Amino acid sequence: MDDQTRVDDEERLDWLRLIRSDNVGPRTFHDLVSYCGGVRPALAALPGLARRGGSAQSPRIFSREQAEAELKAARAAGVELFTLGDPEYPSRLKMIADPPPVIAVRGKFDALARPSIAIVGSRNASAAGVKFAERIARDLGGAGFAIVSGLARGIDAAAHRASLTTGTIAVLAGGHARIYPPEHIELLEKIAVQGAAISEMPFTWEPRAHDFPRRNRLISGLSLGVVEAARRSGSLITARLAGEQGREVFAVPGSPLDPRSEGANGLLKQGATPVTEAADVIAAIEPILGRGNLPSVQEPFQDLLGAPHAEPDTDERGRLLALLGPAPVSIDDLVRLSHSSATNVRSVLLELEIAGRLVRHGAGLVSLL
Amino acid sequence: MDDQTRVDDEERLDWLRLIRSDNVGPRTFHDLVSYCGGVRPALAALPGLARRGGSAQSPRIFSREQAEAELKAARAAGVELFTLGDPEYPSRLKMIADPPPVIAVRGKFDALARPSIAIVGSRNASAAGVKFAERIARDLGGAGFAIVSGLARGIDAAAHRASLTTGTIAVLAGGHARIYPPEHIELLEKIAVQGAAISEMPFTWEPRAHDFPRRNRLISGLSLGVVEAARRSGSLITARLAGEQGREVFAVPGSPLDPRSEGANGLLKQGATPVTEAADVIAAIEPILGRGNLPSVQEPFQDLLGAPHAEPDTDERGRLLALLGPAPVSIDDLVRLSHSSATNVRSVLLELEIAGRLVRHGAGLVSLL
Repeated sequence: MDDQTRVDDEERLDWLRLIRSDNVGPRTFHDLVSYCGGVRPALAALPGLARRGGSAQSPRIFSREQAEAELKAARAAGVELFTLGDPEYPSRLKMIADPPPVIAVRGKFDALARPSIAIVGSRNASAAGVKFAERIARDLGGAGFAIVSGLARGIDAAAHRASLTTGTIAVLAGGHARIYPPEHIELLEKIAVQGAAISEMPFTWEPRAHDFPRRNRLISGLSLGVVEAARRSGSLITARLAGEQGREVFAVPGSPLDPRSEGANGLLKQGATPVTEAADVIAAIEPILGRGNLPSVQEPFQDLLGAPHAEPDTDERGRLLALLGPAPVSIDDLVRLSHSSATNVRSVLLELEIAGRLVRHGAGLVSLL
Repeated sequence: MDDQTRVDDEERLDWLRLIRSDNVGPRTFHDLVSYCGGVRPALAALPGLARRGGSAQSPRIFSREQAEAELKAARAAGVELFTLGDPEYPSRLKMIADPPPVIAVRGKFDALARPSIAIVGSRNASAAGVKFAERIARDLGGAGFAIVSGLARGIDAAAHRASLTTGTIAVLAGGHARIYPPEHIELLEKIAVQGAAISEMPFTWEPRAHDFPRRNRLISGLSLGVVEAARRSGSLITARLAGEQGREVFAVPGSPLDPRSEGANGLLKQGATPVTEAADVIAAIEPILGRGNLPSVQEPFQDLLGAPHAEPDTDERGRLLALLGPAPVSIDDLVRLSHSSATNVRSVLLELEIAGRLVRHGAGLVSLL
């Protein structure tokens, strides 16, 4: 790795400061860096953007001292921080729409470089469901795949346990210092021996309800495919995300009379691949593996750096603000109706976002808070 | 029905004699009638064909007296015989590759005219499997479908029982006077009140092992779709036939740990539609129903009647016989290698068949016995 581009600790601290600052998520991070031409310029631009976006007070910017403290605390616990620019950053995760700019990893870092399959399911799984998850995790582990899951009770824990010796990856919803559920702290120790634990959240972040679905995009993003074991419908977020990310979605069939199979059977009806044994997964994944390594993104924002730095005038800002309201509108419509350039519209939206006044709804829809 | 073409009893007896004669099955019946220009000419041609085919003795031809006796015995038991030319003959069944020329029906004949769904499965079904079969049979019955099954123990009986009041069709492997299994004689009485029982076999035919798979083509042939409930792989003959006949194949998912679900899960992997409730079947079938009634085949052999009556010479017969042996060869190859016309090759093959010397293997392959 010595001959590969590597982010040094100075840069690492900048990345950490930007992603930990107010109103900056993975997508905004990307927009900011491409708009400003780099991570450090983006940090410097935050107060001005927020002001132009109409924020009464400057957004809280994660200080250099805070970043140093997080890096130090993480390393003291055996956790390393990798940015999108580091060679240890999993190449498959780079390719999702909103990759975390910084990930915190504990354990064997090279586990992240292996082809991976996610196995997820419900916490209140049946004994049969647990047994099946163990079997398929063991068989896929034996076939050379790292097993990715969410460290939850039930299916997740069964999948991790059955692949401890072959390598398993736990994706955390909170920080490394706040393992959830607490009774799986010991399991995580075992996971870290041959596998890894990964988190995009601050080291001491206590996971809240909405952090779990957010975390699920990393489970699928790290994996070639997602095996959805018994789960009621309604909580199939990982499978939905996997589909959006172009990952293979596998579902374990179950009796129509077992409510715990509703979700997986529903996925089958939507075209998921049925899986009753590891060979089903391998048969579907092998052609993808055969395509060779994924393109490595050494410079994640290279394509966007040097884009013209747009500077909308006050009139343009006013016209755009007038078009925005609490009802979501499409960015395309904003460009058309405002008679502004797409670049200027993006600039104004970025300002509003940093000012904490904009909500992005996905599919190019935005609304004012 | 008074204004529709109807086969009179004279013709009916001829049809029955031809299909009950030695070496005549549904496919040969069709070939014979098209080759000879009618059912009665085919009956008359049998001894000559067998002789030219090299049979030492004439094939046993079902006599007029035997046919009259079968018709009489059947009617005494409330069983009516319908030929492919009768309006009561189910239009969907006419469209399979090898429709029975004569069917024996007991019960409400008009049940055969309704849109039907087959529900089949294993005899040693689990309680859950039986419960599911009952539920879906009841719901599909309530939605207006007649439920077709095979009167077997387990799933079949459950499907019939749950659709007694809405109408269910039992397809027998033997004759109407030899109900199998005997403990379902009482069930069949109840089926006949609103539904029907159907058989292509002689009235007193004792069903043997290979009559059951043969019967299964009628179960799928009568139906718009086949729901395959729990069954081990290896005995999915109805599903395979349904696929060959262009019927929808549905499979009920089950736990990978339950061997009784192996078959249905295997069908899912091959692309069968998963079904966990009646709505899944209806959603898939509705577009087919929307296409309106199937074309009614009033004159089943019309397309072939009047085809030139080929008369191969002794040389041609010799050349063809020399090319045939115990290893299956394709009819196309026979035509090419014998330098005979396709019509003449078909004639010689028909002669050999009637002489009991030819085996057809499907896919256009034949061998000598």
